Amino acid sequence: MAFAPAASTSRPFAINTSIGSSFSEPRVCIAKLTASTFQGCRLVFEKEAMDPRSFTRTDLHLRVSASSAVLEGMPFTACGDMAVVNVDLGDRSYPIYIGSALLDKPELLQRHIKGQKVLVVTNTRVAPLYLDKVIEGIKGKGGDLIVESVILPDGEKYKDMETLMKIFDKAIETRMDRKCTFVALGGGVIGDMCGFAAASFLRGVNFIQVPTTVMAQVDSSVGGKTGVNHPLGKNLIGAFYQPQCVLVDTDTLNTLPDRELASGIAEVIKYGLIRDAPFFEWQEKNMESLLARDAGALAYAIKRSCENKAEVVSLDEKEGGLRATLNFGHTFGHAIETGLGYGEWLHGEAVAAGTAMAADMCVRLGWIDRTLQSRILNLLERSKLPTAPPRHLTTEMFKSIMSLDKKVADGKLKMILLKGPLGNCVFTADFDPKALEATLAAFCEK
Amino acid sequence: MAFAPAASTSRPFAINTSIGSSFSEPRVCIAKLTASTFQGCRLVFEKEAMDPRSFTRTDLHLRVSASSAVLEGMPFTACGDMAVVNVDLGDRSYPIYIGSALLDKPELLQRHIKGQKVLVVTNTRVAPLYLDKVIEGIKGKGGDLIVESVILPDGEKYKDMETLMKIFDKAIETRMDRKCTFVALGGGVIGDMCGFAAASFLRGVNFIQVPTTVMAQVDSSVGGKTGVNHPLGKNLIGAFYQPQCVLVDTDTLNTLPDRELASGIAEVIKYGLIRDAPFFEWQEKNMESLLARDAGALAYAIKRSCENKAEVVSLDEKEGGLRATLNFGHTFGHAIETGLGYGEWLHGEAVAAGTAMAADMCVRLGWIDRTLQSRILNLLERSKLPTAPPRHLTTEMFKSIMSLDKKVADGKLKMILLKGPLGNCVFTADFDPKALEATLAAFCEK
Repeated sequence: MAFAPAASTSRPFAINTSIGSSFSEPRVCIAKLTASTFQGCRLVFEKEAMDPRSFTRTDLHLRVSASSAVLEGMPFTACGDMAVVNVDLGDRSYPIYIGSALLDKPELLQRHIKGQKVLVVTNTRVAPLYLDKVIEGIKGKGGDLIVESVILPDGEKYKDMETLMKIFDKAIETRMDRKCTFVALGGGVIGDMCGFAAASFLRGVNFIQVPTTVMAQVDSSVGGKTGVNHPLGKNLIGAFYQPQCVLVDTDTLNTLPDRELASGIAEVIKYGLIRDAPFFEWQEKNMESLLARDAGALAYAIKRSCENKAEVVSLDEKEGGLRATLNFGHTFGHAIETGLGYGEWLHGEAVAAGTAMAADMCVRLGWIDRTLQSRILNLLERSKLPTAPPRHLTTEMFKSIMSLDKKVADGKLKMILLKGPLGNCVFTADFDPKALEATLAAFCEK
Repeated sequence: MAFAPAASTSRPFAINTSIGSSFSEPRVCIAKLTASTFQGCRLVFEKEAMDPRSFTRTDLHLRVSASSAVLEGMPFTACGDMAVVNVDLGDRSYPIYIGSALLDKPELLQRHIKGQKVLVVTNTRVAPLYLDKVIEGIKGKGGDLIVESVILPDGEKYKDMETLMKIFDKAIETRMDRKCTFVALGGGVIGDMCGFAAASFLRGVNFIQVPTTVMAQVDSSVGGKTGVNHPLGKNLIGAFYQPQCVLVDTDTLNTLPDRELASGIAEVIKYGLIRDAPFFEWQEKNMESLLARDAGALAYAIKRSCENKAEVVSLDEKEGGLRATLNFGHTFGHAIETGLGYGEWLHGEAVAAGTAMAADMCVRLGWIDRTLQSRILNLLERSKLPTAPPRHLTTEMFKSIMSLDKKVADGKLKMILLKGPLGNCVFTADFDPKALEATLAAFCEK
C-alpha cells in the first residue's frame, strides 16, 4: 500500500496526523493540518469527508499514524491501531505513540533506545504487571544491551528527594553511562521522578516515558516537566527535560483502579475547559463510555488531550505564559495535596476540587455564567470526582500554601481563570482578591 | 570619549574584546578578533602594535572591556581596570567581569539581578569576609528588593544532596519565586551547588556567579556545569545551567589561603597544556609572580583562562567532545578525590597529581616526549602542587572509581591525553590499556 507523508505545514502546530481506516476494506485517508477550527487545529480528510467533532465510536477506531512516523521510515503497516502525536520542539521534538497493545511492539521502544545500557524505573504496583514485558521488549533489540531496573515504592508521598536518590544509587551501581537511556514505566510520580533523574544523572541522559495511568497518558508524561515535591510544596524542585518518545499503551489502563481512572479524567476535562470547547462537549456525551473503559473512547480522549498538550508545549515549552494555562484548577489543587499530606488524595482528585473552586471564583468575578459552572460541576460529579476540598482545610492553610505556588512572581499570585464562553481562559494576577477570599470562605469551614 | 564597539566577526569565537590603555595619557585601542594564532584567537591592536604573548607586567594593567559591555550601554569609563570576556551561547550568552575591587561596583551585579528577590548562597568561610558587602551592593539597586542568604558549611565534603536541600529549604522559607535570582558567593563547591539549586528550584531561576577562589575564577564558575557529588563519584548529579553573569573580583584572592591559591593554579596550567602553548610558556616565566599574588599576573592568568574556557564552552556547551578536553588530568584527579574521601585533598591538588599521571601515561604511549613531561612536573612543583597521588591508593581503587567516570560510554573509558607538541591533546578511548596499567603501577604501591 503506497503511503505518502502528509503535506507539511508552516504553522507552528505540533500535530501532523495521517489517518488510515480500519474498516473492513482497506481504505486510506490522509489528514493534513490546515486551518483552525477547534483551538487552532482541524483535520481535513482528503478522501473522505468526516467531521472530527462528530466522530462516532466506530470512527474512533480509525487507524491513525503521524506523518512524523512515516518520515522517520516506519512503515505504515507497522502502525496498526496507533496514533502518533508529534511534540514539535525543534531538534528536541519527539513522538507520542498512542494505541492498544503497543508494549507488544517492542520495536517502538527499541528505536529510541540509545547506548548499550538501559535503566527501567518503575514502582511496586506496576512492576509485577509490565516490567518483564518491557525489559524483554528492550532486550529484543539485541547486541550487548544491558537492561537494569529499579522498583520504587508506589505513591505521591514517595515523590521526594530520598526516593530520587534510589534511582541515582541504582544507576551508579549498575554503571549507567552518558549514553544510557532511562525508561519511566508507571504513572505521573514515576514519570516525574525518572525524568528528573534522567535530567540530572551525569548532567543529562536519554529518557523514555511509558505512562500506565490516564493521568500520565493525557498529561504528565508529555511536555518535559519533571521533578519532586518539597515538604512545603508540590513539584518545587525539578527540571524541564524532554523525553525521546512517549509510548502510551492504552491496554495498561485495563489494570488501573477506578479511582486512578477518574483522577486522570480531571485533566481531560481541563483541556476542554481551557481551550477545546468541542472536546468538552464530546466528554459531556461520552463520559460514561470513558468510565466504562470503552477502548475507543479512551483512545480518543488520550489522543485529543495529547494533541492539546503538544500544541501548548510546542508554543511555550518553558511556561512563559500560555503553558501555565494547563495548570487550571491546580493552584487550589496543589494546596489541597500539600495541605492534606501527599498521597491522601490523588492528584486528579485534588485538581477536580480545585477546578470546582476556580469555577466558583470565576462566577464571583462575573467572568463565566452559572450555566457553565453547572456543566462543570455536573461533569465532575459524573466522573465520580470530588467538587470540594476536605472541609477541615482552612482558608489560612490555602493562603499559606498558595503563596508558595510556582506561579507567584514578585509577590503576586497569578491564576488561571476561565473567562468568557466555554474554552477560554486567562492567566492573570489582575483579579479582585475579594473573589478569592469569598471562594475560600465558601469552601472552608474556617 | 567616543568608543565604538569592536567590529563583529562571523567566526564562532567567544571573545570580542575592546581594550583601552591605562597609561597616563588617555589612549584608546580597540581589539578585534580576527585570525587564529594561539589556538584560534589573536588580538589585533589597531592603534598600538602589541603582542599579547609578550605582555609585560605593566602591560597587564591595561584596561580591558568587552564590546558586549559597550553594546549593553555601559560607559567605558565605568569599566576601570576591568576585563570582560563574553561567553557566546546565543540567547544564553553572558559576560565574565574580571578586575580589582569589582565588589565595590555594585551596579555590575545589580544590572543582572532579575525580579524582586535574591538569595545569596555562601559558606562559613566566605560569609564573614564578603557577604555583607554583596548584600548591601545588591540592595543598593533600590525598589522593594529583598535579599536573603544561606550560609553552608565549607568544603568539598558538603557538596552533597543533603546540603543542597538547605538551599531549597531557605528558598522556600523566604518565598523565592520564579523571577528571583540566586547568587553564588564562594569557591567551586558553592558555585556548583548554588548553580544546581538555581537550575532545579521551580525548574529554573536566574543565577549569578561571584567566585572567590582561583579555582572558581579560572574554571568552575564559567560554562554552566553545576552539580553535587555522589558518595561513589564526583559531580555525578547535576545540570548544565548558565549564569546571567560571572563577577570576578580579584581582590577576593587576597584572603585566600596559599593552599587554595595553588589548587586553582592547577587549572591554569591545564589550559596551557591542552590548547594554549604560549600561555604555558608565560606561566613558566611568571609562576613565582602568580604565587606571590602579583595583581597583574593574577588578572592576566584569570582573563586568559576565562578566554580559553569561554571559547571551548561556546563551541561545545554540552560536552559533545571538545569540552571534555578541559577535564585533562581530571579522570585520575576525580579518582583521587573520591578514593581519599571528598575534602581530604583540594580539587586542584588532585588534578595536579592527575596531570602528572596523565603525562606519565602519554610518555608511555609515545605521544609526548620526556622534555615536555619534565616541564610539566617542574611547573607543578614550582606551584607547590603534588605530582603523585597518596601512595596508599591502590590500582584497584583507581580502576573501580574510574569505571564510573562520566566519560565512560558503552563500557569504554575515554581519556584526555596530550599528543604532539605542547598545547595539543586528544579525547579518545583509542589508547593501549597497558599504558594505563603501567602508569597506575608506577604511581600506586599495589
